[in-house]
Amino acid sequence: MAFETQAGPDDTAPALPLPPMKWDAWGDPALAKPLSQDIRELLGAALGVTARESSAPSAAEVVLRASALTEEDLAALAAVVGTGHLSTADADRLPRAGGKSTPDLLRRRSREPQDAPDAVVLPGDEDEIAALLALCSQRRIAVVPFGGGTSVVGGVDPERGALRAVLSLDLCRLDGLLALDEVSGEAVLGAGLTGPQAEELLAARGWELGHYPQSFRYATVGGFAATRSSGQDSAGYGRFDDMVRGLRVVTPAGVLDLGRAPASAAGPDLRELFLGSEGVFGVITAVRLRIHPVAAARVHEAWSFPDFATGAAALRAVAQQGAGPTVIRLSDEAETAVNLAMTDKIGGSQVAAGCLAVTVFEGTREQVDSRHARTREVLLAAGGSSLGEEPARAWEHGRFNAPYLRDSLLDAGALCETLETATDWANLDRLKSAVTEALQSALTKAGSASLVMCHISHVYPTGASLYFTVVAAQSGEPLAQWGAAKQAAGDAILAAGGTITHHHAVGVDHRPWMEQEIGEVGVKILRAVKDALDPAGILNPGKLIP
Amino acid sequence: MAFETQAGPDDTAPALPLPPMKWDAWGDPALAKPLSQDIRELLGAALGVTARESSAPSAAEVVLRASALTEEDLAALAAVVGTGHLSTADADRLPRAGGKSTPDLLRRRSREPQDAPDAVVLPGDEDEIAALLALCSQRRIAVVPFGGGTSVVGGVDPERGALRAVLSLDLCRLDGLLALDEVSGEAVLGAGLTGPQAEELLAARGWELGHYPQSFRYATVGGFAATRSSGQDSAGYGRFDDMVRGLRVVTPAGVLDLGRAPASAAGPDLRELFLGSEGVFGVITAVRLRIHPVAAARVHEAWSFPDFATGAAALRAVAQQGAGPTVIRLSDEAETAVNLAMTDKIGGSQVAAGCLAVTVFEGTREQVDSRHARTREVLLAAGGSSLGEEPARAWEHGRFNAPYLRDSLLDAGALCETLETATDWANLDRLKSAVTEALQSALTKAGSASLVMCHISHVYPTGASLYFTVVAAQSGEPLAQWGAAKQAAGDAILAAGGTITHHHAVGVDHRPWMEQEIGEVGVKILRAVKDALDPAGILNPGKLIP
Repeated sequence: MAFETQAGPDDTAPALPLPPMKWDAWGDPALAKPLSQDIRELLGAALGVTARESSAPSAAEVVLRASALTEEDLAALAAVVGTGHLSTADADRLPRAGGKSTPDLLRRRSREPQDAPDAVVLPGDEDEIAALLALCSQRRIAVVPFGGGTSVVGGVDPERGALRAVLSLDLCRLDGLLALDEVSGEAVLGAGLTGPQAEELLAARGWELGHYPQSFRYATVGGFAATRSSGQDSAGYGRFDDMVRGLRVVTPAGVLDLGRAPASAAGPDLRELFLGSEGVFGVITAVRLRIHPVAAARVHEAWSFPDFATGAAALRAVAQQGAGPTVIRLSDEAETAVNLAMTDKIGGSQVAAGCLAVTVFEGTREQVDSRHARTREVLLAAGGSSLGEEPARAWEHGRFNAPYLRDSLLDAGALCETLETATDWANLDRLKSAVTEALQSALTKAGSASLVMCHISHVYPTGASLYFTVVAAQSGEPLAQWGAAKQAAGDAILAAGGTITHHHAVGVDHRPWMEQEIGEVGVKILRAVKDALDPAGILNPGKLIP
Repeated sequence: MAFETQAGPDDTAPALPLPPMKWDAWGDPALAKPLSQDIRELLGAALGVTARESSAPSAAEVVLRASALTEEDLAALAAVVGTGHLSTADADRLPRAGGKSTPDLLRRRSREPQDAPDAVVLPGDEDEIAALLALCSQRRIAVVPFGGGTSVVGGVDPERGALRAVLSLDLCRLDGLLALDEVSGEAVLGAGLTGPQAEELLAARGWELGHYPQSFRYATVGGFAATRSSGQDSAGYGRFDDMVRGLRVVTPAGVLDLGRAPASAAGPDLRELFLGSEGVFGVITAVRLRIHPVAAARVHEAWSFPDFATGAAALRAVAQQGAGPTVIRLSDEAETAVNLAMTDKIGGSQVAAGCLAVTVFEGTREQVDSRHARTREVLLAAGGSSLGEEPARAWEHGRFNAPYLRDSLLDAGALCETLETATDWANLDRLKSAVTEALQSALTKAGSASLVMCHISHVYPTGASLYFTVVAAQSGEPLAQWGAAKQAAGDAILAAGGTITHHHAVGVDHRPWMEQEIGEVGVKILRAVKDALDPAGILNPGKLIP
């Protein structure tokens, strides 16, 4: 072979640094969560879930579609990034072959040939990214920007569109703390930094970003921006898009450096066009972010409300009065009954009556005390009963672990998936009922009893998010089973006035609802921007834009 | 004449409701502010300003360029809006011939033929607006959306671009409170409502929007959105763009209804493309806004700081610690010396030593007390001395009146104008010095001593705005004199890392700096959106997009 890639002799040894996640399950195998006896009994009794023999392949057994790239393609790519930063080895392609939705994980269990990017490249800077985009535009190769690979909506699926091949452009080498302005409270972070890497760099200087989505341990700064991520501390520090002061983006049409000032009236805010752009307009390379000093004090308090409506009204009062919690969440009756908010207690005896709420307060001692006092007063007046700090600490302890549980549930023969939306306070109950009913009736139609649980995890003065967790017994065709339920839920969300996604982004899975979400003229705008920036259509085809 | 417009026999009587502003000066003639003896003496002594004979024409004396519309055009327009909502009378065209910048007001004083829209239309609903846009696209007639006419950047200049004629599309008939959701705290307001009209409709139900820019009395809800306005209460209630939950926009390509949820990850936030779009992409017809209950309590306190740097650091601490004032402002030494922040005391004996700061707190009694206490503590620790409530009340009393003073200054032979920018806290001093020096040296070069004053009126955790007021003796060619100073200031702003405008918008006057502001690729995006939505290029030509 004229051109040597970094593939090992049998393609089973990776040539590049691996993404932080296991290829066929969430996260780090060492942190796997086997199901407790409580959960197993619950699954059998309530949902009729029975264990199945697994026939899932090991990584070495997976058959990947062969790379479609030619030697000339590979030589040209290597001329840009260097041979050490390019690979066609299966062991590099497989971990970047998709995200972590339940359908992704079900597909990974197949012994049929699986799809994967034709090669993986690890550019080292913006110039290399610009050169890659030019090369791929010319050679008709699609490019999927890759961060932590945590998408649950198909955002990193290796789709080629009408092109010859597809590259996974892994941003892991853009991992610097590029600037720290301690007067303005801002940091410029490389797009490839994972949540923990970013926080570690900042913490060494006494600062924190404070963005903790469930994907925190694996997802990246660039991914947070490209998907409008929202973290569990959003009540205190805002959504990720709220924190973004500036963005650098490399597009096939040139580089953008957006965000000259904390606020501006110089026309449309173009940052907001790249936040949520999911790699279809360009590759985000660096993000300037509002940061805050590491909290000196923290206080936890859990609450019980007699029912979801009372609890929701209490959270609304907290948000509208600006009482100031850093975290505030409310589980509905179903979630509370199985302790879903506390990973280590799931399925055990019920910790809270009615509906459990969790609050956490961060800041200086004085800020924490006054925020806590104000929030307590509002929650008490709204019908809450304090449960003390322990259940809130239990929530925090397991805050990133729920996805591990899903892996164990899938292994045990259960179907488990989540979906989310948001709406105004006045419409919250109607939306919650509509989605619950849609999920349950779609799963019943497919022959499965189901458990649909819900919580509020992000509040705003005018409304809130709703996050649903669904568990059912797997049918013989779980992909089709979930597909029908997801279709029913998405239709119900749009019909009941919600947004198709509050923080999971669009990817492939939510694309069918985008025209309903933003209208025909909205779609026309996205297409016009796409054509202007990426005329060859190489960037993440098949995602976001219908 | 086959087609009769609503023009009176001599074109001097208006046929349509008049815009709320005097045609050749700010606001309501009854509120004019003659210069006090103190100010006259200050102008003469410090700047060598001497009174001039005015040769300005009366409205009846102004010679307007004749309407270029044909009888067929007018018949087609009347078929859409009705003859009662269309006029070519000079008396209707003149008050919509431009905004209220100093150059606008100087141009109004000319006896040469003046430019004006070829006709004024007052559509009554979205369908009529859509029909007008279709008609104008077909007949190659430009359309300038018109709200309160308060633009200070040429945003409503009657430019035709390459088209045959230009219409002023006055939105005053879209004046309804279209929905009020007291649970979510949201109102849908018609785009043509002025600030006072909107607040009156809301106050009748116990609610407030809380958006008080200096143009509040005349500017409209649609204009606030189209220009990313920022009000004096921005510390408490946010900028206007922060308040916008949803927008309806009529474009030549169809209608957009944006903002399904309080927050969403369903791709780019397209609201942010129409906020600040200044009528070039479409006509904003209704805005869904976050509102709050009318404040039960208010507290005022003024402060003195030894110098601007100390005061700015104090405001920074307040913003970064989230202490919660509704209004917080800081005048520099020059503004403080002439009491510019208190309209009725300007030029009198200096009220505050060093630099004056003003704070106002609104909310429930409890909120106001705790916000006030926290803010006091921060300001005291940062080196402030309390001046009690009186100077803060004096600021509030005159908060909308400064533009009247400018009219009197122009009459008295002085040149007076304002400009504004914003940047990060770490860059604030550098930007302030650069702009001050650029203004002073440009005016000195043209032979005039000048007084350049500055204040901070909008604060963010990461930075703040800077608002400059310039006074000098008018030269024989005041338009050219100001043009050179404005050019120097704009160049200095961009060179020193500021935004070309924090809340005055772009219009014609800031357009030359837009490519530097958002980059070549940013401009390409705006042009692509424009081409997609307005292929005939009828909407507000010559504004915003370079």
